[in-house]
Order: sequence, then structure tokens, then C-alpha cells
Amino acid sequence: MGNNETEISDLGEFGLIDRLTKDFAISNTETKLGIGDDAAILSFGEKDVVVTTDLLLEGIHFDLRYVPLQHLGYKAAIVNFSDVYAMNATPRQLTVSIGVSSRFTVEHIEMLYAGIRKACENYGVDLVGGDTSASVTGLVISITCIGDVARGEEVKRSGAKPTDIICVSGDLGAAFMGLQLLERENQVAAQQKDKDFQPDFSGKEYILERQLKPEARRDIVETLRKEGIRPTSMIDVSDGLSSELLHICKASDVGCRVYEDKLPIDYQTALMAEEFNMNLVTAAMNGGEDYELLFTVPLTDHEKIEKLSGVKMIGYVTDKNLGAALVTRDGAEIPIKAQGWNAFNKV
Amino acid sequence: MGNNETEISDLGEFGLIDRLTKDFAISNTETKLGIGDDAAILSFGEKDVVVTTDLLLEGIHFDLRYVPLQHLGYKAAIVNFSDVYAMNATPRQLTVSIGVSSRFTVEHIEMLYAGIRKACENYGVDLVGGDTSASVTGLVISITCIGDVARGEEVKRSGAKPTDIICVSGDLGAAFMGLQLLERENQVAAQQKDKDFQPDFSGKEYILERQLKPEARRDIVETLRKEGIRPTSMIDVSDGLSSELLHICKASDVGCRVYEDKLPIDYQTALMAEEFNMNLVTAAMNGGEDYELLFTVPLTDHEKIEKLSGVKMIGYVTDKNLGAALVTRDGAEIPIKAQGWNAFNKV
Repeated sequence: MGNNETEISDLGEFGLIDRLTKDFAISNTETKLGIGDDAAILSFGEKDVVVTTDLLLEGIHFDLRYVPLQHLGYKAAIVNFSDVYAMNATPRQLTVSIGVSSRFTVEHIEMLYAGIRKACENYGVDLVGGDTSASVTGLVISITCIGDVARGEEVKRSGAKPTDIICVSGDLGAAFMGLQLLERENQVAAQQKDKDFQPDFSGKEYILERQLKPEARRDIVETLRKEGIRPTSMIDVSDGLSSELLHICKASDVGCRVYEDKLPIDYQTALMAEEFNMNLVTAAMNGGEDYELLFTVPLTDHEKIEKLSGVKMIGYVTDKNLGAALVTRDGAEIPIKAQGWNAFNKV
Repeated sequence: MGNNETEISDLGEFGLIDRLTKDFAISNTETKLGIGDDAAILSFGEKDVVVTTDLLLEGIHFDLRYVPLQHLGYKAAIVNFSDVYAMNATPRQLTVSIGVSSRFTVEHIEMLYAGIRKACENYGVDLVGGDTSASVTGLVISITCIGDVARGEEVKRSGAKPTDIICVSGDLGAAFMGLQLLERENQVAAQQKDKDFQPDFSGKEYILERQLKPEARRDIVETLRKEGIRPTSMIDVSDGLSSELLHICKASDVGCRVYEDKLPIDYQTALMAEEFNMNLVTAAMNGGEDYELLFTVPLTDHEKIEKLSGVKMIGYVTDKNLGAALVTRDGAEIPIKAQGWNAFNKV
């Protein structure tokens, strides 16, 4: 701990909360009462309310050796916003609970909150509550996000119908390759005698940013609304495309065909996969943490979707009995299995 | 792990969620969509929404050596309901996120959820979401509770006015004495050679129940509503009466006088304090975890409050410049300081 750093016990719980939350402004009229009472009070008029929550644990979901706290805060908020957008809703409020062990100073936690604040500002979301506590071990972050949606406008996972077109925004596999790169460079750095060793990430900025500072696709949800396209089902890609496709198939009681040659993949992702001698399609299908939107639209929206930039048609919905399969470049069908990230296999 | 127990990794995340949540029913019409999508969907019509959240960490907030998992689950839910009632609102939905290390089996986590389910059934609350993850250390429980309140009917901490009467429900200090007893018996048991040693808790059931299986005071909120009593401020007693009085004084910009001889204390609490040679008033003022309601009412409600069973008038609100003080039996005034439980001093 440096000379200018503050022990959390010097402030106590309420002092810490005051210090962490003082720079957060309330920007939504839906927020009637924020931090400082037994509960926050929200007012949504006639709109419906959506709620999603995420738990992030040090050593499981993040590694502070190569994830800056500010980025961690930003990402922790973004992944919740992404879930709200995936319901065709707008994120409005956030609660943040943290457990911190004694190796963290107030300044560390302020960096985490600086990232959360940046995300809140960028997406117009209000921090309205939370809980802070000591932890006997590492850092624990639990975030709950609340949003609203005009009644009847929500989009669930369960509305996909055979012949619907399957679309995905952005590109896939980049965050996963960014993680591989960070892990490799972290190992290399650990072996260096020179303490000032800095890895050279030039030409790899995109995949790093996709891993460290992802964005939620508010723009896609807004564009679809503007163009009068109403998805029949939607989900965000957190565990990997394969896993999300299976979620939609299960919830909608359908099958699907997705084409290998239609998968949107960035040039840097492809280069990195080659460098690591990894299968690029596997990275795109199962890598996860893309936070892109996977959605289905009626066949009649084909022309509208074709005109959109940043959205790609990757396949179509089938009858359930056809199952879920990836169609390879040579026309073979490979059953899609969820090989997404499973935290329970890791410990 | 016994022969009939199941490793969590055998089920995986989605399997575990399915198994844990299958016995939860949806009972509120306000819950449109529960578990199984990116977010839950809630519908509150014209009512306002309240949100509160709590993070519970093993080794900080609970000790599994003497807290059964089922009770832990019940209590984890109850403490959130208590916060919602303290806003004069009704809890409707709950999200539960857990992080579990490999020493826990599926059956362990099912016991935790059995307690949560019991609490949800008793209070009419729907489980609508959550997150499950592995943890490299102990058990992590993060709960968010959502409730509703007719617009304008919410009661905050900030409405207390000088001359208002200060009231508290139930009695104080019992949960704290229950904890002392559990900790002592746990130490005694550790020193016994007889593995089947069972502590004798007879005559101490009440203080144990107050610690292990507290209830939220829905009945008090309902009674006040029925009797036409509208508190000017309200808070639930989690960190201790002193701490909560100071929260109300700060939020309402007032002072207070509370009378030592008016503090509601159970006979078992007093006996236990004597046995431990502890100061009973300190236990009642600073023990915490009572989950009673502390509230203020206008002086004109004096007669109405007097008729209520289970509510005691303990003092009155003063001008801010008089500060917050406890008036002892001999008429001395002792400034009230928050000596409530501070998780940051413990690690």
C-alpha cells in the first residue's frame, strides 16, 4: 500500500459507501430515491420492469493480474446492461454489492467504481443501491440491473418460429482470443527478469478491447426499433454462440441451421487464432463474452435486415426434430453442443 | 461427501439452476416472467417499485459450524424482506446469486434453497432470477429483493419531525445474545472428546430462534396500515438500535431522546446477558440483527399506538441541536454512538 492510500477500515462501511457513490448522478426520472434508505424507490408508470443479476468472483470470473480494476468495473456493469437490452428493454438502475479483502485500499475500490460510473454515464443508468462488506478472500462483485420496457414490447428467448432468420450483431470470438493473448503475455511477463517488461500489443488492440472493455449493443436495439424490425426472440452472447443458440432452440421448441461461412469474425481474431494454432470456428462458436445480440426475425424482414450494417444473417430456424447444427463450408452438418464456459468445471 | 450426494460439476450451471428452482412457484400477478431468460419481467401497473440488496459472505456474515444451511437461506431472504417492509412496501420478487466452493454438494445447496423457498412461501415472494457460480473459497450469497408500494405511500428515513414519538416493534438484543450462546457452545463442543456431544439449549430457544430464524415484521406494517397510522419515518433494525436511530436523525435532520427503561427486552435476553456478565442495555442498543421496525409517528397518534400490542414507545424526536441521547434510569443523558456491527473492522 502506498503512502497516499487509505485503509478501508479507516472509513468504515458507511464512509466507504459515501465516498464511492458521491460522484454518481441520478439521470432517470424513473429513479425517485437512490442510495441512502432501506431500499431505492423507482417509478415506471405503466411500463413493465425487467431485472437481471450477475455475480463475479475473483479467481473465477476475473484475474486482477491482467484486468485493470477500472475495466473490471466497466465490464461488470456492461454485462448486465447487455442482458437488459436482450429483452428489448432499457437499463435504468443498478445496484452494486462488493466484498473486499484487506489487500484492497479505498483507492482500489474507487478505481472499480470509476469504471462502473463510466458505464452508467455512457448508458444513462443510475446507481441506486448496494452493499459493501469485508471479504476473507478476494474481490466479490454482485450487480443487479433494472430496466423498463413498454408493455408488450419485450422480446424473450421463446418466440422463434421455423423459417425465421437467425441474425447476430458485430463479430464473434474476439473477446476469447483477447483473453488467450492476455493469459500468454501474463505468463511471459512472469518469466522475465526485467520488472519493467511491457508486452507489445500493437495490432491486437481490437481483441484486447473486446475482452477488457466490451460494450452492450444498445445501438442495435435502437436501430431495430427505428427500422420497424421486431425480433421474434433475442439473447445476448455471453457463454458463446453455441450455448445461446441452444437456449433459443430450447425455449422456442425449435431447431436451427447456422452456416460456418456466415459467422462474422474479425481479421485480428483470425490472425490470433492462427498464431495460437486454434480452431477459428470453435473460438467463434464457443469463445463467449462477445456481448453481441443473437436474434431471430420473420423471413419477411429479410430485405430490411440486409440493409443494416453491423448485423449479419447466419442461418435460419427449423422444426425441432431437425435439431441444432452448424453447416460447414463443405456442406456437412455438425450438431451444435454447448461448450461454453462452465464455472463449475474449473474449480 | 456421502454416497448419495452429488458433485455440483456433475450437473453443471444450468442443471444446478434447474434443480434448485424447480420447486419454486410464482404466486404474484406482478411476475410476468421468472427464471429462464436474460432477465425477469415484472408488471406493477401504477405502483412504485422498491429495490434492496444484500451480500452475505462466509466467514464474515455467517459461520457454517453453527448455522444450518436451511436457516441461512431463510434468514438471507428475510433480511431483504425486512428492508422492503421498512419502506412500507410489499416484497414481491427475489433474485438469488450464489458462489459455491467444491466442498459443497448439490444437496448442501438444495438445503440452502429449501430455506429460501420456505421464506418465499411464508411471505408470498417469487424467485425470479439469479446466478450460480463456482467460488475458489467459501459460500457467497447475494440477494436482491423487489417490492411494490402504492404511489405516495412509501415511508423513508427522512420524515421524522421534532415531537414525533419513536416506536420499536418486538424486543431487542435477543439475536445478539443468541449469537453469543452459539459461539460459546461451539467452542465448548470443539473441546469435548465425545463426538456426539450436544449442547443443552433448553430455556434458550427464543434467543436462538431470533439469531437463526428471524422473521420480517410484515404484521406490524399491516397493523399500522389497518389502524390508519402512517409513520413519518421508518427503518429496520439490522445493525443495532443506536445505528438505526442515528440514520433516522441524520436523514431527517433531527435529534432524539430514547429512554433506557422503555427498551423492550425479553426475559431470556436478560438472563443470558447476566450469565455472560454483559451489559444488557449495550446488547439491546448495539447488538443488531433484530429485524424489528423502528419508526416515528406524530404525537397525535399516541393513543392509537398505546393500544397496539407488539409496539413500544421508547422516546421522542427532538431538534437537531439537542443531538441523539439515551436517557438512563437515573436521568443522565448518554450520547448515542453507532457501535453496530462493522464488517470492515473484523478482517
